Amino acid sequence: MKSRIRFLKDLDPISLKDPILIQGLPGVGNVGKLGVSHMIQELKAIYFAELFSYTFPYHVLVNNDGILRLLRNEFWFSQLSKSGGKHDVIFITGDYQSQTPEGQFTIVNMILDLAEKYKVSQIYTLGGYATGSVSKNPRVFGTATSLSLIKQLKDEEIEINESGGPIVGASGLLIGLGKMRGIEGACLLGETSGFMADALSAKVVLEKLIKLVEIELDLGPLAIKAQNLTKLIDQMKQKQRHRPGTRRQESEEEKDDLSYIG
Amino acid sequence: MKSRIRFLKDLDPISLKDPILIQGLPGVGNVGKLGVSHMIQELKAIYFAELFSYTFPYHVLVNNDGILRLLRNEFWFSQLSKSGGKHDVIFITGDYQSQTPEGQFTIVNMILDLAEKYKVSQIYTLGGYATGSVSKNPRVFGTATSLSLIKQLKDEEIEINESGGPIVGASGLLIGLGKMRGIEGACLLGETSGFMADALSAKVVLEKLIKLVEIELDLGPLAIKAQNLTKLIDQMKQKQRHRPGTRRQESEEEKDDLSYIG
Amino acid sequence: MKSRIRFLKDLDPISLKDPILIQGLPGVGNVGKLGVSHMIQELKAIYFAELFSYTFPYHVLVNNDGILRLLRNEFWFSQLSKSGGKHDVIFITGDYQSQTPEGQFTIVNMILDLAEKYKVSQIYTLGGYATGSVSKNPRVFGTATSLSLIKQLKDEEIEINESGGPIVGASGLLIGLGKMRGIEGACLLGETSGFMADALSAKVVLEKLIKLVEIELDLGPLAIKAQNLTKLIDQMKQKQRHRPGTRRQESEEEKDDLSYIG
Amino acid sequence: MKSRIRFLKDLDPISLKDPILIQGLPGVGNVGKLGVSHMIQELKAIYFAELFSYTFPYHVLVNNDGILRLLRNEFWFSQLSKSGGKHDVIFITGDYQSQTPEGQFTIVNMILDLAEKYKVSQIYTLGGYATGSVSKNPRVFGTATSLSLIKQLKDEEIEINESGGPIVGASGLLIGLGKMRGIEGACLLGETSGFMADALSAKVVLEKLIKLVEIELDLGPLAIKAQNLTKLIDQMKQKQRHRPGTRRQESEEEKDDLSYIG
Repeated sequence: MKSRIRFLKDLDPISLKDPILIQGLPGVGNVGKLGVSHMIQELKAIYFAELFSYTFPYHVLVNNDGILRLLRNEFWFSQLSKSGGKHDVIFITGDYQSQTPEGQFTIVNMILDLAEKYKVSQIYTLGGYATGSVSKNPRVFGTATSLSLIKQLKDEEIEINESGGPIVGASGLLIGLGKMRGIEGACLLGETSGFMADALSAKVVLEKLIKLVEIELDLGPLAIKAQNLTKLIDQMKQKQRHRPGTRRQESEEEKDDLSYIG
Repeated sequence: MKSRIRFLKDLDPISLKDPILIQGLPGVGNVGKLGVSHMIQELKAIYFAELFSYTFPYHVLVNNDGILRLLRNEFWFSQLSKSGGKHDVIFITGDYQSQTPEGQFTIVNMILDLAEKYKVSQIYTLGGYATGSVSKNPRVFGTATSLSLIKQLKDEEIEINESGGPIVGASGLLIGLGKMRGIEGACLLGETSGFMADALSAKVVLEKLIKLVEIELDLGPLAIKAQNLTKLIDQMKQKQRHRPGTRRQESEEEKDDLSYIG
Repeated sequence: MKSRIRFLKDLDPISLKDPILIQGLPGVGNVGKLGVSHMIQELKAIYFAELFSYTFPYHVLVNNDGILRLLRNEFWFSQLSKSGGKHDVIFITGDYQSQTPEGQFTIVNMILDLAEKYKVSQIYTLGGYATGSVSKNPRVFGTATSLSLIKQLKDEEIEINESGGPIVGASGLLIGLGKMRGIEGACLLGETSGFMADALSAKVVLEKLIKLVEIELDLGPLAIKAQNLTKLIDQMKQKQRHRPGTRRQESEEEKDDLSYIG
Repeated sequence: MKSRIRFLKDLDPISLKDPILIQGLPGVGNVGKLGVSHMIQELKAIYFAELFSYTFPYHVLVNNDGILRLLRNEFWFSQLSKSGGKHDVIFITGDYQSQTPEGQFTIVNMILDLAEKYKVSQIYTLGGYATGSVSKNPRVFGTATSLSLIKQLKDEEIEINESGGPIVGASGLLIGLGKMRGIEGACLLGETSGFMADALSAKVVLEKLIKLVEIELDLGPLAIKAQNLTKLIDQMKQKQRHRPGTRRQESEEEKDDLSYIG
């Protein structure tokens, strides 16, 4: 049993002009997956390939129409160059990222094989940076594999990740292993509580990303999701404040611990 | 060391007419294994092959005659077409299903190799759906890999599995990976408490299955097992009700938590 | 990195007449290792090969002379046929048995390759059967892969293992996989508390084994170890009986729970 | 995906005269890594190769300049023979040692391939020996794979490791597997509490090592680190002594339990 990428009929190969790759998989605050899913939807990206792996857990999912399907990672593309964009884009998202070293290394290398096939010049990965508290103005942290990209991140007021800190999972590994193949990359992490699927964090990450890669994107729908989430959190805080015996100091309100929601 | 299927002497190959495959392995409520074992017994199926795997745990079992044997999955066949049936059937059951992704994917693919060898057109897998409470009228849930099969399930008043829900283990994986090889399939799950080997759940799953695949089957012996189990549960509830300090509301009686038995 | 067997210089191949294989590795009560180590010593067996495996844990041991060495399984032989014995014997013992399915299956298959090379006709594995209490007259349980061997076990008043019971580890697996290669075998398990290295259990297992395989063996040194252990246990019971508040019924004394010693 | 060693440009091969190999990886008290890192710095060793492995955990690190990089083991060399030294030296240190048998065996064998390529005659590995208490005069323990090396250790008043004791991790395995390839080696372990990165333990290990391998080395900077650590510990003890209700006996002061620091 091998992990493998299956291309959809008539979509192998596809024609892409100077493509970059943008990946967001399930993870901390689901920031990466929320961000990339939004891009796929807004940019009307086309589904062209899917990755199956024996390193995913041994369960399957049921679709809206009751159809059973295997866990997968998904590949989508958008020919933005046709409407004047600088790059075409390959998007990667999916149900799952592997929880074993062997699985992560295997899958990331398969993705890089595909990236090389399409001569991808840059890789951007999106993820969350858990702080344990809710912020109304989440920051964006970044790291990269070239000093020129680090400079670009700083120009966009992205905070550079602290030295020595680990970045766990596919968002770090794809960039690190990509460098080994001569593909430069950056990893953008949105500050998030880690307690919920965080649309606000996804929105601020996308705001930075689209400037870096010069893509036009409507962030409106994500902003609405973020506002709804903020309202929900405010309501929960309100209830908490009025429950006897749990009143907190006003100064603590800006950052607030919540159980995982979403 | 490889996993491998060993065919019994003079039973490789066997002659099967348009076979379907029905699998039930140990799992939630042991519903799948109970169901398939009952079919094997009632239909006088013939044992023709066994699967050994280095991904099973490293223990062995002792038979009734004191003989030691390896853990295995078992393949049986029934030439129902000879007595007017629509399909011949291959049954799969066994001692164990692997508890690792690598084991599950390896074994399911070996089973699919065998299914392809015999040109199996459809796969049905049986299992349990744990609810944590005992029901006197357990429901049957289903999912499939084609819309035509989904329609058949609905026609038999099988409830379609909720979107997004995971189906864990070989009963889901065999169907999902079978689809990748062009074999359509359905997975039927009987509602069960998850606390005991559930003959009643196995019976209601078989009632649905035999209509779907048009097999005649005496469910009497399974009904008797199910009645005995129901009596046992009623006796336990009775005792519990008369124990001081544990009396429950009448409304709670229909669904009742029990420790695992059987 | 592969697991491998290294033969000592000038000892590959060795000349063996109709050899049988006797294995005892660390395990429950250390019964198997104690028994086989005793045979190796008394029969002046010769060390001829060692097995190294990447599936053993990643530590090393220090010898009496301060020399560091890898964990290993050991192969010894005894040309008993030269002094009128029915069979020559290969003994297997070692530091460790693997704690993963992959490791167990890999190593057992390597041992069986060696067994086939020397045309081994029968395999006997020794181990312990934990009951949780100390018995002064430990029983010996057995199982085998042929009805003729089962009969021989019964003739020697070995209790046949209960149907359905699992036998965990190399002592079961070597017999089960040996059968697949056409080598018959039996597994003898000595009753033991499981709380200590049990020389008495090893002694009663050897008493049965040497009748089965017609080997002459001085059990004296093992009997002395067993007596010393029994004395130690009696002293501990004595102390326990005289400690206020822990007095037990006389009827409980024959079987007594102790913490693991030795 | 394979583990692999990547050589830096123009540094494959390098020219080394009768090299020995000295390894210190993260581990107990970080003694090995501290020691080898100090040697690399003081001897102005040159970085020439790095090992990447799919058996390391799936995270990446961020450098001082914000650049993301993969976890790695590092190879450095020092041409000490050019300034009259007896041997050139290859040093190995790194971010991590694998925590699985497969990873450890794979990586150690890759290191031994490199050692054979450069005809390394001896391997020394450094590590810590945890005692659970802080000692002002930590001892150095040793083991080796030849009696002549054991004699040299004794001549340097290194205590030989107790028989039967396990040595866990790469420091034992590299020596044990090196022996299998005909490379002799010794493992030196500095006594350490195990609660902190222990510069004092690293210093006493290096004092022994440089006599064994006849290398001149300034231990001053490490001595200063060790003194600072000792002062810190003394201050913590002082505070502890003056806290009411936690006063200890004077006799207990020499060896003192501390939480992990550094």
